[in-house]
Amino acid sequence: MASETTAVPGYEDRVRASFARMAVMRTLGIELGEIRPGEVTVTAAFRTELTQQHGSLHAGVVAALLDTACGYAAFSLMPVGSGVVSVEFKTNLLAPARTDLRTVGRVLRAGRTLSVCTATATGSDGTPVATMLATMMAVRTDEPPG
Amino acid sequence: MASETTAVPGYEDRVRASFARMAVMRTLGIELGEIRPGEVTVTAAFRTELTQQHGSLHAGVVAALLDTACGYAAFSLMPVGSGVVSVEFKTNLLAPARTDLRTVGRVLRAGRTLSVCTATATGSDGTPVATMLATMMAVRTDEPPG
Amino acid sequence: MASETTAVPGYEDRVRASFARMAVMRTLGIELGEIRPGEVTVTAAFRTELTQQHGSLHAGVVAALLDTACGYAAFSLMPVGSGVVSVEFKTNLLAPARTDLRTVGRVLRAGRTLSVCTATATGSDGTPVATMLATMMAVRTDEPPG
Amino acid sequence: MASETTAVPGYEDRVRASFARMAVMRTLGIELGEIRPGEVTVTAAFRTELTQQHGSLHAGVVAALLDTACGYAAFSLMPVGSGVVSVEFKTNLLAPARTDLRTVGRVLRAGRTLSVCTATATGSDGTPVATMLATMMAVRTDEPPG
Repeated sequence: MASETTAVPGYEDRVRASFARMAVMRTLGIELGEIRPGEVTVTAAFRTELTQQHGSLHAGVVAALLDTACGYAAFSLMPVGSGVVSVEFKTNLLAPARTDLRTVGRVLRAGRTLSVCTATATGSDGTPVATMLATMMAVRTDEPPG
Repeated sequence: MASETTAVPGYEDRVRASFARMAVMRTLGIELGEIRPGEVTVTAAFRTELTQQHGSLHAGVVAALLDTACGYAAFSLMPVGSGVVSVEFKTNLLAPARTDLRTVGRVLRAGRTLSVCTATATGSDGTPVATMLATMMAVRTDEPPG
Repeated sequence: MASETTAVPGYEDRVRASFARMAVMRTLGIELGEIRPGEVTVTAAFRTELTQQHGSLHAGVVAALLDTACGYAAFSLMPVGSGVVSVEFKTNLLAPARTDLRTVGRVLRAGRTLSVCTATATGSDGTPVATMLATMMAVRTDEPPG
Repeated sequence: MASETTAVPGYEDRVRASFARMAVMRTLGIELGEIRPGEVTVTAAFRTELTQQHGSLHAGVVAALLDTACGYAAFSLMPVGSGVVSVEFKTNLLAPARTDLRTVGRVLRAGRTLSVCTATATGSDGTPVATMLATMMAVRTDEPPG
């Protein structure tokens, strides 16, 4: 079993391979940046087809960005043979999202089953636009979450 | 000032007009259903371009659906001249989202400034796939949220 | 293993025995009411030594009430030999808590490991004062949570 | 109106005066520490009369500690004549709380009406035991929250 703070060999390749299987990321213009153990950078491009009624990126898109950063931060510390699913997340919207966004997901607590992660998204001028506190779960890739 | 539980004249047209301005709704396949004071039905179509690595609708898409239902449920009770912004939301994912989804946003508490709303999304067989507890804020449409 | 919706024999005695071990419940004036599978009633007495600066019960006391209802609702469906711990909870405060309170915790989803629960507390006149959406975890009583 | 990042004259006295009016703080063994603009330290003593069934401080007590730190961090930036109420908070429990606790509440976003705050509580050995993401609201002291 992986220790709670040690990098698992091959973690970066596993994160990138999992991310590549998410069709939604292309639809939402979300891309992976730097990947470190327990810390994953993710970006979102501003696209008008993703905007809400006031011309900002919709909160669901921002949540997708933050959830991706949190989920892969957790996944980067999980043992080989694991998958990651989101148990729950809580997001506060801090300012309208009117530019490209960037966030770094970080693991606050890495447990055998559950990990707690945070991420704050900032606009291109550094303004915080949203923050998330999330719970992620390791699942065996050959069984459903429980 | 609108009383907290009374329908505001024209609420349905105002909800539909606001929704129509959200480009993201077409990208995510989200549509408005029935609109009642404090209670708004919203649906999402299953689309492969919105799926995550396990083939389910991504949690951000599900959050967009639930946030939309909560936001317009709150908006339907707000006075003319108001806009609605999401302050925060919390979502628990309950089951993989492998079908079209449907949800009804409901207002638990309608305040002058803040409204608290809930919505649970179900799959086409009625299985609950996610639930949200959210805070919405009324803003004057001629000023930024604060 | 217990099925997800079936009562586990002896659930009521197990809930009452666990509750009786919580010294904090006496300090906070919280008592167990009716116990059904997946649905547990809990009450809190209004006490001035539990009030905040505006004379209402403090949000932490209200959270303790709601968390207790959610936790035991989940626990009532868990197999013999399990304990329950709170993973996380989210609470919206809806109105000042100036009377005795009552709440019913209910399980939205009962999983092998995680359960998702809700509870809304009402004052003595039926006014909703707070609502919670929480995640509970089953732990083997002979090992720490993970 | 106070700017969003400037200290309001007398903020420390106002925080201490408000805290002193909370009877619940003495019942829960919670004390104020250092007070800076937007950043307030709060501690909780371990007391057996506040423990749950596994001998740790109850989650509601931990939530009270974190909520207090978040609330006064927000209040320290609010204009004279304001009061603060908790809109909502979300707490992840990270480890059993078996010692005295300490936390620093910090303001992520200070708005005219709403402030978003975080706090993480640590045990006497520095272990994180719980974290909170919360929304606080400024209210005129002569009117109810809305």
